[in-house]
Amino acid sequence: MHPIITLTTDFGTADGFVAQMKGRIIGINPRARLVDVTHDIEPYAIMGGALVLRGILESFPPGTIHVAVVDPGVGSNRRGMVMRLRDQVFVGPDNGLFSLIGNAEEPREIREIRNPLYVSPDPHPTFHGRDVFAPVAAHLSAGKDFDSIGPLIDDPVVLSLPEVHSYPQGLDGEVIYIDQFGNVVSNIPADTIDRPVAAVIVGEYSTDGLNRFFGQVEEGRLLALINSFGLLEIAVNRGNAAEELEVAIGDRVGLLWKEASGGVAP
Amino acid sequence: MHPIITLTTDFGTADGFVAQMKGRIIGINPRARLVDVTHDIEPYAIMGGALVLRGILESFPPGTIHVAVVDPGVGSNRRGMVMRLRDQVFVGPDNGLFSLIGNAEEPREIREIRNPLYVSPDPHPTFHGRDVFAPVAAHLSAGKDFDSIGPLIDDPVVLSLPEVHSYPQGLDGEVIYIDQFGNVVSNIPADTIDRPVAAVIVGEYSTDGLNRFFGQVEEGRLLALINSFGLLEIAVNRGNAAEELEVAIGDRVGLLWKEASGGVAP
Amino acid sequence: MHPIITLTTDFGTADGFVAQMKGRIIGINPRARLVDVTHDIEPYAIMGGALVLRGILESFPPGTIHVAVVDPGVGSNRRGMVMRLRDQVFVGPDNGLFSLIGNAEEPREIREIRNPLYVSPDPHPTFHGRDVFAPVAAHLSAGKDFDSIGPLIDDPVVLSLPEVHSYPQGLDGEVIYIDQFGNVVSNIPADTIDRPVAAVIVGEYSTDGLNRFFGQVEEGRLLALINSFGLLEIAVNRGNAAEELEVAIGDRVGLLWKEASGGVAP
Repeated sequence: MHPIITLTTDFGTADGFVAQMKGRIIGINPRARLVDVTHDIEPYAIMGGALVLRGILESFPPGTIHVAVVDPGVGSNRRGMVMRLRDQVFVGPDNGLFSLIGNAEEPREIREIRNPLYVSPDPHPTFHGRDVFAPVAAHLSAGKDFDSIGPLIDDPVVLSLPEVHSYPQGLDGEVIYIDQFGNVVSNIPADTIDRPVAAVIVGEYSTDGLNRFFGQVEEGRLLALINSFGLLEIAVNRGNAAEELEVAIGDRVGLLWKEASGGVAP
Repeated sequence: MHPIITLTTDFGTADGFVAQMKGRIIGINPRARLVDVTHDIEPYAIMGGALVLRGILESFPPGTIHVAVVDPGVGSNRRGMVMRLRDQVFVGPDNGLFSLIGNAEEPREIREIRNPLYVSPDPHPTFHGRDVFAPVAAHLSAGKDFDSIGPLIDDPVVLSLPEVHSYPQGLDGEVIYIDQFGNVVSNIPADTIDRPVAAVIVGEYSTDGLNRFFGQVEEGRLLALINSFGLLEIAVNRGNAAEELEVAIGDRVGLLWKEASGGVAP
Repeated sequence: MHPIITLTTDFGTADGFVAQMKGRIIGINPRARLVDVTHDIEPYAIMGGALVLRGILESFPPGTIHVAVVDPGVGSNRRGMVMRLRDQVFVGPDNGLFSLIGNAEEPREIREIRNPLYVSPDPHPTFHGRDVFAPVAAHLSAGKDFDSIGPLIDDPVVLSLPEVHSYPQGLDGEVIYIDQFGNVVSNIPADTIDRPVAAVIVGEYSTDGLNRFFGQVEEGRLLALINSFGLLEIAVNRGNAAEELEVAIGDRVGLLWKEASGGVAP
């Protein structure tokens, strides 16, 4: 079989940097099969990269190796790491980029990249994507042992999503991501929405309940739905919600139940 | 051999949505060979997608499967479809996206996607690209029978290009597409241009006859030629015609013959 | 094994032009393995393409075939060419696009594309990428003989990088490229920097010496380093140097030694 290696970076595609990574990988393991996830993570946006990586986990088969490089600390003493979770492997900087993947309690094995046999002889201090992470992924795809990469890490850098607050009338969260359609993604997960919803509120706008898909409201109208990441999302049917509502990452998102839980009177 | 699956969407590449489709395909058929056509169709622009798909038909070998998703009606009751034409297969929403491919009279077989075995168990209502169309394409590439997808459709949604009007002095068409170079593509097909051309007119600008390639006029000068789609195109040598002429989709394009057909006097 | 064919163009990815090239390649040689370098070279920017191609040489294994199309002269009498250098092959227009690859003195064999068996029967005058260069690369990848492409070229079009001037106090160069991060790349090669550096100067800004990686200065601060192409680069840690310094291609870049060579007095 051809082992899959995916690539996720903030390198853009204009300069050929990603192709340099691919050339290195194929040079080490000509059987590797390369799949681009994205190279358009906003430069240095570790959280954005972490959310995209979280989103792809379920779609790839066991054995997939994911290389990801959003790495403002390249060249410094930040560690390089490999992580094994649900039979998939992640390779990149230890800066939180992989910390939102899977459930927080799920077992994962993390090792520091130390074995000099798996990296380029003289890694360029600004391009570990090409000289460290790509070669490590290629060697792993060629059957090298995960344990041989380096020692265990038990204190990886961890990002956390902002907390969702629950109160009798509803939930209180915030915008954590805006996708290319301008859909506004909140931190409110589907499984916390366990009762009928009266409205979702962002800024001075509010929706009429919760919908299942875009076309349930008229073109140009606001709606909320559970998106394909399993998170509450605010969208405009055939429109760009982030622009039309002037919403940005960090803005608050409220959700109101149809009937408040608990009552103030008997 | 490795069956080819191409992907055409309006998802952009920033969010990892396309990678989720690819992961699903490879998970079902590891032998599938993936080729991106574009993910930069303007959001919801079914006509733009239809024109790009029309343009690629001739370049791919028999057996190619094309998945395309420009799908503002996702989740609603619009049908999903597969279409077979000239030994190639197209998979996506039945919204007109595939209706400009090939000649209008050419035979094609269209079926509705109904077989639950070929789609994800619980398709997300906003992401049929990942949960319906990608799996269907993967199963077809793995040898599943076209007929087993679902019942025949005999009334697919059809887009039509605006009509070209012919009159004694010339032709009257309009702008239907603007490419990344800013070249202005009209709906006037090469085979209607059967006489020497005096000028092509768009807005207040006109060309000096018809050229064969860009470099036949000086840098910065306007020209018209038959483009690689077989359509009349207005361009600026080494420039961006759409910007410089302030032309938009829907603007009229006129063509004047050197000698009008028929005469007003004996 | 699967021969590698890379693609570098200024076509963008929106219109499906690159996919048409890929379809043609796979149609001729289904075993070819395709790797995108970039399709975002600035339109008609031969120098930009030449620098990106220069950057990828070291990362690809022997036998790789690189197709590159930045081709404002398409359709005119500019020649098509194939070049062999260090066991890699380059296919595209003879307009200087391949002239910065490798060391200037390094042996290379260049031939003109003339053999009609290797190109599409009736190449479209605006799309040699699809009808000439892609098929030639595909045939070469399928084992066709390099010598059979056409006659030797001994006067290829050659671009040259602007010269770096050395004087006792330092070096005087200029900006030749700006990457997607806004890093400002000069024409000053690493091997000319053979002494301690006091400062690198661009416009009214100057750095404090020379660094090795971005994180060695505080966020938002200017620095200079040797980039992964082996050239002197000015950057802002986690920022966009080109925008913040308002620097453009062609602007001068100065470098000052800590101690000037030679002295003015005995």
